[in-house]
Formats: sequence, C-alpha cells, structure tokens
Amino acid sequence: MRQDGRLQTDLRDVTIVPNFVKHPEGSVLISMGETKVICTASIEDRVPPFLRGQGKGWITAEYAMLPRATEKRTIRESSKGKVAGRTMEIQRLIGRSLRSILDLSKLGERTVWIDCDVIQADGGTRTASITGAFVALALAMDKAVSEKKIKAWPIKDYLAAISVGIDQQHGPILDLSYVEDAAAEVDMNVVMTGSRQFVELQGTGEEATYTREQLHSLLDLAEKGIESLISTQKEILGEINGRMKAQK
Amino acid sequence: MRQDGRLQTDLRDVTIVPNFVKHPEGSVLISMGETKVICTASIEDRVPPFLRGQGKGWITAEYAMLPRATEKRTIRESSKGKVAGRTMEIQRLIGRSLRSILDLSKLGERTVWIDCDVIQADGGTRTASITGAFVALALAMDKAVSEKKIKAWPIKDYLAAISVGIDQQHGPILDLSYVEDAAAEVDMNVVMTGSRQFVELQGTGEEATYTREQLHSLLDLAEKGIESLISTQKEILGEINGRMKAQK
Amino acid sequence: MRQDGRLQTDLRDVTIVPNFVKHPEGSVLISMGETKVICTASIEDRVPPFLRGQGKGWITAEYAMLPRATEKRTIRESSKGKVAGRTMEIQRLIGRSLRSILDLSKLGERTVWIDCDVIQADGGTRTASITGAFVALALAMDKAVSEKKIKAWPIKDYLAAISVGIDQQHGPILDLSYVEDAAAEVDMNVVMTGSRQFVELQGTGEEATYTREQLHSLLDLAEKGIESLISTQKEILGEINGRMKAQK
Amino acid sequence: MRQDGRLQTDLRDVTIVPNFVKHPEGSVLISMGETKVICTASIEDRVPPFLRGQGKGWITAEYAMLPRATEKRTIRESSKGKVAGRTMEIQRLIGRSLRSILDLSKLGERTVWIDCDVIQADGGTRTASITGAFVALALAMDKAVSEKKIKAWPIKDYLAAISVGIDQQHGPILDLSYVEDAAAEVDMNVVMTGSRQFVELQGTGEEATYTREQLHSLLDLAEKGIESLISTQKEILGEINGRMKAQK
Amino acid sequence: MRQDGRLQTDLRDVTIVPNFVKHPEGSVLISMGETKVICTASIEDRVPPFLRGQGKGWITAEYAMLPRATEKRTIRESSKGKVAGRTMEIQRLIGRSLRSILDLSKLGERTVWIDCDVIQADGGTRTASITGAFVALALAMDKAVSEKKIKAWPIKDYLAAISVGIDQQHGPILDLSYVEDAAAEVDMNVVMTGSRQFVELQGTGEEATYTREQLHSLLDLAEKGIESLISTQKEILGEINGRMKAQK
Amino acid sequence: MRQDGRLQTDLRDVTIVPNFVKHPEGSVLISMGETKVICTASIEDRVPPFLRGQGKGWITAEYAMLPRATEKRTIRESSKGKVAGRTMEIQRLIGRSLRSILDLSKLGERTVWIDCDVIQADGGTRTASITGAFVALALAMDKAVSEKKIKAWPIKDYLAAISVGIDQQHGPILDLSYVEDAAAEVDMNVVMTGSRQFVELQGTGEEATYTREQLHSLLDLAEKGIESLISTQKEILGEINGRMKAQK
Repeated sequence: MRQDGRLQTDLRDVTIVPNFVKHPEGSVLISMGETKVICTASIEDRVPPFLRGQGKGWITAEYAMLPRATEKRTIRESSKGKVAGRTMEIQRLIGRSLRSILDLSKLGERTVWIDCDVIQADGGTRTASITGAFVALALAMDKAVSEKKIKAWPIKDYLAAISVGIDQQHGPILDLSYVEDAAAEVDMNVVMTGSRQFVELQGTGEEATYTREQLHSLLDLAEKGIESLISTQKEILGEINGRMKAQK
Repeated sequence: MRQDGRLQTDLRDVTIVPNFVKHPEGSVLISMGETKVICTASIEDRVPPFLRGQGKGWITAEYAMLPRATEKRTIRESSKGKVAGRTMEIQRLIGRSLRSILDLSKLGERTVWIDCDVIQADGGTRTASITGAFVALALAMDKAVSEKKIKAWPIKDYLAAISVGIDQQHGPILDLSYVEDAAAEVDMNVVMTGSRQFVELQGTGEEATYTREQLHSLLDLAEKGIESLISTQKEILGEINGRMKAQK
Repeated sequence: MRQDGRLQTDLRDVTIVPNFVKHPEGSVLISMGETKVICTASIEDRVPPFLRGQGKGWITAEYAMLPRATEKRTIRESSKGKVAGRTMEIQRLIGRSLRSILDLSKLGERTVWIDCDVIQADGGTRTASITGAFVALALAMDKAVSEKKIKAWPIKDYLAAISVGIDQQHGPILDLSYVEDAAAEVDMNVVMTGSRQFVELQGTGEEATYTREQLHSLLDLAEKGIESLISTQKEILGEINGRMKAQK
Repeated sequence: MRQDGRLQTDLRDVTIVPNFVKHPEGSVLISMGETKVICTASIEDRVPPFLRGQGKGWITAEYAMLPRATEKRTIRESSKGKVAGRTMEIQRLIGRSLRSILDLSKLGERTVWIDCDVIQADGGTRTASITGAFVALALAMDKAVSEKKIKAWPIKDYLAAISVGIDQQHGPILDLSYVEDAAAEVDMNVVMTGSRQFVELQGTGEEATYTREQLHSLLDLAEKGIESLISTQKEILGEINGRMKAQK
Repeated sequence: MRQDGRLQTDLRDVTIVPNFVKHPEGSVLISMGETKVICTASIEDRVPPFLRGQGKGWITAEYAMLPRATEKRTIRESSKGKVAGRTMEIQRLIGRSLRSILDLSKLGERTVWIDCDVIQADGGTRTASITGAFVALALAMDKAVSEKKIKAWPIKDYLAAISVGIDQQHGPILDLSYVEDAAAEVDMNVVMTGSRQFVELQGTGEEATYTREQLHSLLDLAEKGIESLISTQKEILGEINGRMKAQK
Repeated sequence: MRQDGRLQTDLRDVTIVPNFVKHPEGSVLISMGETKVICTASIEDRVPPFLRGQGKGWITAEYAMLPRATEKRTIRESSKGKVAGRTMEIQRLIGRSLRSILDLSKLGERTVWIDCDVIQADGGTRTASITGAFVALALAMDKAVSEKKIKAWPIKDYLAAISVGIDQQHGPILDLSYVEDAAAEVDMNVVMTGSRQFVELQGTGEEATYTREQLHSLLDLAEKGIESLISTQKEILGEINGRMKAQK
C-alpha cells in the first residue's frame, strides 16, 4: 500500500466544481486529492496575427501557481519578470492537448484562452489542469453554441490526462502525489481521448532509464486512470454529454 | 436604494473562510459580495538585506488577479514581463497597512510574506485584501507563537479596510461594487485599526474634486463599515481574539 | 522652532522659473527649499489607443530622479530595466491630479506629457512636481491657445500640492524636508484646487496611526500652504492668470 | 520512397566532426543531412547554489539557433529579451537526457555546460543536439580524466536521440526532415541509451492522435535509428570507447 | 559663415557652473551653446567584483537625456525597460576617456560614478559630457584629497572633447550644433589630453567616406577647440589647477 | 618577431568560404587566424517604419558570439535578457560601415539583415565581421540582381576592416590576436573602401594616450592590411568582381 493508503492502481479522489468563477464563459475548480486548480475558458473574438483571414480559430493555454500553492513559497513570475521554463513547457502541453480534440475550423475567427491557476499543489498539477480545462472548454463551447456565436459543436472527443511513474518500492503507480513524484525513478504524463487514442506521451527518467516492458505497464495504468477521469467528466457535463454524443 | 438593493450605509455580505489552503502558515478566502480573494501569510526565516543583524522582522505584500477574475480577460503580468503600476500601488498599500499594527521587533529576524490573489473581482479588491490579509496574518502569528518560534504576541491591534465614494445619484456610499466604483466621482480607501485610528487614507477625485464636508461624510461611513468588518474578524479568530485582548 | 528655523506653519522658500528649457511647449524649474524639479509639458498630436476617435484628449505624467539628486547615489531605473513601485505611484498621482482640473474635451485628440525630473531632492518631491507641473501645463496651454491649436482655454482651476506630517516633537508641521519626513510618524500629501477643493489626499502612518482630530489639524495646515503656493503660481503666470480668471 | 529518396527506415547521412572549435573542453560539429549543430561541453569548477557542499556535480544545457539557420530569418532571442518556450523545452530535454547517463557524484563540485548552437536547420535539431552533445561530453570527460581533474570515468552508458513520425502517405518514418516534420500527423522524439533503455519519450499528435499500435511501430523504428547513431558515436570516440567499455 | 554666425573654427559659448547640485562630491552644469548637461561625480567606497582585493579603484560613467531635452519628446529608457545602443556607446566612451587620465591605483578601492544628464540637447552632448565630467571629477578628487580619503592627487592630465565634421557647404567645421550634425557628411569626436595626446578618435562617415587629408584638417580643428576648452577648465578649477600643476 | 612569428606588418592567414550555410541569400565563413565568424546576409521585403513609402532600402547588422567562442564560457545574452553594450557598439559599427558603400535607393523597399556570429574568437572579431559581411552582402546582392528583384547593382565600392595597435615591445602592429590586443596600449579599428577612403576610425587608448605621429604609423599599417583583404575579397567574388568594376 502507498503512503496515503492507495493501491498502485488507485486514483486520488477527484471532484470537479463547474462554473466556479462567474466571469469566464466556462470554468471549474478541479481537485485531485490535495491538488486544486482553477481552470477557466475565455472566448475572445479575434485570432492571433498568423491566423487572420483564414476563417478558423485558435486555442492557447496559460498556467501558473499561486506563490503559496507549494510547500515553500515560490517567487511570482511577474516579480521575476520572466516565465520559467517549466511553466512554458506545461502551458505548451495544455494547448497542444486541447487542440487535438477541438475542431478549430468550427470556432470561426475566435481564440479560446485557457487559464489554469493552481491554488494548491500536491503533484500532478499539469495533468489535473488538462482534465479540468477540458470541462471548462466544454462549458464555454456549450454557452457559445447556445448563444449561436458558434454554429456547430466543435469538440471532437473527450480528453483527460494522468501521471504514472515507477517507484522503487511499489513499481508502476498511478496518479502520483508530490512525495511520490519526488521519489519516483520514472515519471510519465499521458494525455488520451475518449476513444483511447494518445494525444501526448511524455516519459522522463530523471537520472534513470526504463525498458519497453515498463513502458507498457505504465500505459496500462494510465489508460485505466483516464477512463475513470472521463466518466467523471461525463457526469459533470450531464446534458452537454448528450450533445457530445449526438455530434459524433 | 442602490442597484443591488443596498442602502448607502450597507456593506455587502462578508464571509471569511479560515485555513482555505493547506500549505501557508495562515490563509483565508475572503468574499465581499462577488469579490473573492485568497489571502495567505507565509513566514520565512530571514529578512531582506537592509534589515539583517538588527534582530527585527519585516512584512511585505504581493497582490495579483487571476486573468479571468475580471469581466474581460486581463493579460498576465508574468507574460508582459512587468508588474503594472496599479498592482505596485496596491501591494505597497497592503504592506504599509499591516506594518502599522505589527510589532516587527517581536518577529525576530523573520519576514512575513502576504499574498493576496483575487480570484473574482467586483470592486474593492484592495480593501478586501487588507481585511483578509489581517486574518491570515493573525492565524500565522498564532501558529508561530504556539510553536514557540515567536516568543511574544506581535499584533498590536485589529485592522480592516473599506472603500467609500460619492455617487451622483446617492451621494456618499459604502463598499462600492465594480459598477458603482466606475460611476463614482470620488473614490476613497480607508484603512483603520480596532481603536478607530487611521492608518491610510487615500481619496481620489478622478476628473473631479471634493470638499471637506464631503470628506467628513465619507469618513463617517467608512468608520461604520470598518467596525462591522472588525466584528467579523473577531468572530472568525475566536480564541485568537482572546489572545489579542490579553496582549493589550 | 524646526531644525531649519521654520515655524510649524512655514513653507520653505519657493521659486518657479518659467521656460527653463527651450524645446518643451511649457517648462519650469521649481525649487522648494533645496528640492529642485524640472517640470515640462509636451503636446503630442495623438491620443492613446483607448481614446481614439472620441474627440477628447489625455494627460499623463512621468517622474524620475537624477541618480545623484539624493544624498546617496540611486541606481538608474533604465539600468535596472524596471520602474520602481514608488516611481509608478508618484507618476500616477501627478497624472490623476492634473486630470481633475483639465477639461480633456477641449484638448482635441492630443496628449499632454508631463515630465517631472528631480535634479536635487530634499523631501516633498512629489508635491513640488505637481505644483510645478501645473505651471508648465498652463504655459503649454497658453502657447497652444495662442497658436490656435486649441480653441478654448481648457484649464478649469489652479492646482497645487503640499506635504504635511506629524512630528513627535513639534506636532503637525507643513512642508517637510527630507530629515523631517524620515522622522515623521504620519506623512500626508494633499492636492487642492484654487477653490479649496480636495483632489487627492494620501495620508500614511508608516508603523503608526492617527486620529480624526490630527487629520483635521493636518488639513488646516495644508490648506494654508496650498493657498500660498497658488499665489506664487498666479504671480508667475501673470497675464495667463487673467485668462484663467476670464475663463471662469 | 520519401521526398529525398530515403526508405521509411533510413537515417539521413550522419557525420560528427570532433574538436570542431578550439576553446571548449569537448566539441563537435554534428550533421544529420542538412541539419548542422555545433555542440560544446565546458567544465566550470563550481556548482549552482542548490548543490554546493554536497561533493557532486551538475550538467546543464543551452540551445539556440543562428538567426538564419532557418528558411526565414528568426529574430534573435537576445534582441527580444526573452528565451522562447520552444527553446526552453529543448534545453531542458537535452539537460535531463544527459543527466541520465552521467554519474554526477564522480564529477566533484563541477558543472558541465552543454551548448548546442544550430547553424543550419532542416528538422531534428533537438535530437541531433543530444546525439552530438553526448560526444562533446565524452571528449570533455576524457580530457578531465586524463588531466586527473576527475578521478573516475563518470559516463555510465552511450546516449543518442532520434525523431520518428507518422506521415499520411508513408506511415511511420525515421529521422524526419523539416518538410516531413511539418507534414507529419504525429511527431515523436526518442532518447535511448546504449543498453536500449528509454530516457525520454515525447510523442505529440498536434491536432491529431495515435494508437498504441502506432506507438509500437514508432518505437521499433526509433530503436534501429538509435543503434546506428551509437555505432557512429563509437567510431568517432575510438579509444575513448575502450575506456567506456572498461568502465562497465 | 555658419547658420548661427560662427566661423568654421569657432566654438560655441562655453560656460561651466561648478557645484551645480549639492549632494555629489563634484558637479557642474556645462553649457556649449544651447547644449546643457549636468555632470556629477560620486565616490563609492567599494569597487566592482572583478577588481576586489587589488587595492585599486575604478571609474565608470552613465549618460541619459531628459525626455524633452530634444526637439521631439523621447521615450524614457526606464519605460522601455532597456538602454539604447546609442546610450551604451556614449557611456562607454565617457568612461574610457576618463580612465586614460586617472591613476586608478591612487584611488584605493573606490569607484567614481560619473553621471551625465542632458537637460537640453543641441548637438555635441557626448563631447560636452566628457569636458564637463572632467571638471566634476577634479572637484570630487579635490574634496577627497582635502578630506584625506585619497592620499595622492590621482589626475594625470587635463581632458576635453569636441566634435568636428565635414559640411558640404563649409568644409571642415568645429563644434557642430544639432542642425549641422544632421547635415554633415562626416562626423568625428575627438578626446584629447592637456598634453595634446589623443585618447579617443571616432570618425564616422554615415553613408559617406573621407580621405586622409580631410582627417588631417579635422584633427587640426579639433586640437584648437580642445585647447580652448582646457583653458576654460583651468579657469574654473582655479586653485585646483595649481594642484594639478604641482603634481606633474 | 611577434609571439606567433609574424612581423609587425603581417596579417594572419585569411580564408573566406562563400555560401557556408544554405538558407541565407549570401553567407561566408571568414577565418583570420583562429578567429572564425559566420556572416550571413538576408533580404527581407520590407523596411523599418521610419523608411516606409520612401522607395529606398535599409541595411542593419547583428553580432553575437557563441558562448564558448571564448577562452572562458560567456553567458548568453538571451539568458541575461539583454544585449551587452559591447555587442551594441559592434553591431552599430558593422551597420554604419556597410551603409557607406551600399546605395540604399537601389534596394527598393527592402531590408538587408547582416548577421555575424563568432564561432571562435581570437581577437579582431569586429573587423573580421565587417570584411566577411561585405562578401556575404555582395553574394546576396548578386543573387537579387540575377533574380531581377533588384534592378541595378547597388554596391558602390569594396569594404574591409582591420585592427591595428601599439605594443610596448614591438610598436605599431597589424591585425592583433587576442593576447596582443589584451596587452596593447592603443587599439584602433579602421574601416576603409576599395578607393582608400575612410569609413570609420575608432582609436582608443584604454588607460593610455597616443600622439599624432603614432596615429600616422597606425593608419599606414591599416591601409596595407586593408588592401590585402580587398584582394582576397576580389578573388572570392570572381565574376561578381567583374560586375563591381563594370558598375563603377
């Protein structure tokens, strides 16, 4: 059994509170255990210069942590005057992931801004951000379609993400907490769709390596975790889920 | 009656959730109507260079808004690479205000970092930040005193802040919402202690001016609002309130 | 008597040299005791993006100190690559103050840039900047009206600023020098118009507080100081003063 | 056959010129087809603050492209004043990869700086950088061991990297050129050791997804490519290769 | 005759007001025609890291223009967040020039900061800065020697600078005003010592070239101008001049 | 004889490899002894804002060094977030020099970007950059004229640059290596055209001075060096050389 009593194959408790803040077109508070992220989706009626006049839209993501989301206070990136490499890596990952399931040509010349702000961090903030951002995006798209801003339902499939890793003591484990992540030899983030396709796979052996067999066990674990997360998303989305199905 | 049904002298509903996030030594979620701010107090065991070796502590504050705390999405200061003038003005105000009621010599060579992060904005974010930050600070000090890190109770008095303003239609009003603030001719932020002393007074007539009589009416309103906020703080702090009294 | 021989109610010697530099539309060198500031007003024939097409103008201010305006050399903000919070606070104050007495709709789509550069600092640089900037503005407006660039006289009233404070030994004092400011318990900056209306009031008790009675004494002192400063402005402006009166 | 006449399973021509520049402890010019990168390894006799006093070393990497390494001139990051997200992602990847095969405890308190500067880009610059950087590192370590600066041979295994991808027309392909990369549906970068262990796996479906079967085919291809690259590295390293073997 | 009535060989009117500001160890206001620069010399009791422990000092210079020193308002470098190339070029020139006549080993571990702030610009600001900075430096050194901070007189020779140029109509001319500078084909700045040695020679043919003969005529002119400037410096320095002589 | 066996009047070995990289319109690798610089010329079909609509073109230059071009690794300017003063000085020099021999009115509304990237440094990198950049520019212009993008041959004359200096032991010397440059009392960079006209002359006596006679000897040396460099350029340019002549 793991430090917090979970089995290797257990996710932490997941809750997704829809419409957590009032201004954005879509928003959630997602909690995965003690990791808590506010994800919002904002629709802006124009696209970045490189897309102008092409009749299609764009989706981009930003990610940040409150200074005291972490055990030790982190200096604000605004105070340092620059965005850290880790932050950039994460926001590029979130953006690419969401682009894989969104039909940009159905957005019209609009940009969707995804903002993921971690208010409490305990491992897996980037994967929680993706899983939560998907729901915020679906809520925003639902609003835009209801208001006839967007004509056809633009989301092609569900999307969720989870971390897996290899622990010296327990072997492959699902959904690592911060302590587990710090101790793990291999750390992998997996982003998958509702039809069990990969969108992103990022596996890193920091000061370590892993075999193809280990890769398999990790992917098996991840697939189960993502299935479960997508069920939760479907519950939360309720009627919007019907619309997703209809669209397929 | 005002747009949201309040009288000129009414505060919006105030709630303060203590220990809202788990890592910081002290934290709250303060809501004043639809304005919501996470305030945290973090204790660091060293002081800035200009205070080293003097045996006393420091308190400093940072303030930020999530991009979609506002009606329209605001660009992150980290992306712009610089902190806006408005932000700097606010964080300097929060820091100065808290310094007026904290006995820095009792902190030892420690810095208290106050972080106020607005997750939803509807006017009065800077005053809500001060009122909330005071509670976060008291919680952090209580923890530090319990753990014997700090020997003597260092907070000298209660502290709260409120906005008042002059509206063309209703005259002087208390605790302005965003719409009221945008329409007001005069906008004043008042920071006061539990013993009804002023700490900060910032009254601005943007493209307008005001008389000494108007100043008086505004201060009368503010004083009432602050009294009420301090009662709320006392309730939340419960036993810590006893300690505050004992110390006096 | 104060350190420099003044009574509590005495201003320092004030001189305002008009047209101190040749390029700007309006300029002065203002001295208040040993505090010396070059204030210039520059007219640019366009407005910032948020005002375009509205037929009205804008006024904005920048403030800086020469590195050796101070006792100890200060690092240039250009070398540090960012503007300090104190500087931002001051330039926002100067801009807001001047906006209260300038009828922006009479400017046409023009921006007035106010630059206040402190060449020698001895306390009260922000209030001297406002008092001097008003004269530079009046000179620039006079030029623009003479040249028929601006059709109607756009300045609605005189404007001046002064600091007041509470000193442990002397109580409330007017126009604090640097040493007095450093020692004062309460420091207040007051900006008023020729018709004795308040424009800005910023009172701060750094590590201290003040009562409503003390506030009154400070405002009494400030009002006298400002009356005297406005007389000086009227003398300097000479004929322009006539134009100001006529306009009223 | 692919556009440049290669089979799906063909690498481009690979050449590695050792000691390409004279100052660094180790350096190469690696060419993979038209992609050309100068990789250097510099030894500095101290470690970053977070490692001081622990008796172990560090390795870190920086990556950049000359402005006209690309088809269209790219603006220098020094002129823009910030490092792009893509650059940060790549240099973090290079650093992590090399850390997996370097025994930091054998370095002593030293930092190895890896610099990868792309002088001509035609796809696969990040994987060429890793493959080339490994050789530069081995050369630098050889020098340091010969000079007795470092006591024991610190490199644990060979390391190389290659890109694979899925092309609509040809299916899985190895070592993508720029045109192929731009057209590919899935793009994966694989970093492996001499003992066929994974170090990093980054697979991205930009606006697309991929199945587990496709993942397999890609990994098969990548494994072959890496085997071939490691043979080339062994040839270049000559005697140093003997030392690598002995150490095992 | 030139536009302002001068002969080719005429300097503009030169005045140097010593001790123009009160805080710096040395300061002047230098005017060359309508060009006006405040030059200050500040002594700091430490040297930059690369010189620590060597028992010798350093001198460095910074240069800036007030925003409205120029015909059209220039944006502040602090607002842009970076120092322009032209500024850097000028401040490096001032620093190098002064280093040629200052015996750094006699300063002890001290840094002299030279600040040249142009309050009104009409051509030749960099040369006026050097000529003025020399006097500010001499005043500061005199103070330091009188106060026994510095034991031996550290200035080895006088130093002044002037601009010369080639004008299509008048040929070689001395001390160019802004209009002349803008029209000149060749622009040269010459820095020389009291013993007629060159310190810096920077001749530029922007979109033009010049012959060796033209170079000669320019140097002849420059030499005369510098002789005259050094006479002025000697007058201003009065007694300090004696000390300069004695030291030789 | 000098440290590397050269006479005072000897250049180091010069080689210029044309078309060193494939993407730019013109490129070379120039080596002067151990100093090696990649120079590229890129043509962009627009001009900076200040030139729009005037029918003429622009040429601008950027200069950088790879981090390990130097004996000790230099921190990247992109990591520091700002361009050093030395770099700015050099890139301004390269740009101005090339502007003197390029007829901008024949370019049409196009910008030529010159990039000089030092891959190995051993003194004289700025002069090697100019000499190499001239060839890259000629290659790019030849391409543009052949492709009829540019109608008339726009280069007015050859251009090369060399360093000269005064060494305590050997007196005036040509083409200083890094060690010689570090030891020299006077350091001068000379840029001249094929018709022996000066374009730039920058002579600096760092902590030293020089006489008019010494200036002469230095210019004699420089003239010889530049003649030799221009012969090399002519050989490399071959047929383009014919075109240059024809144009005259």
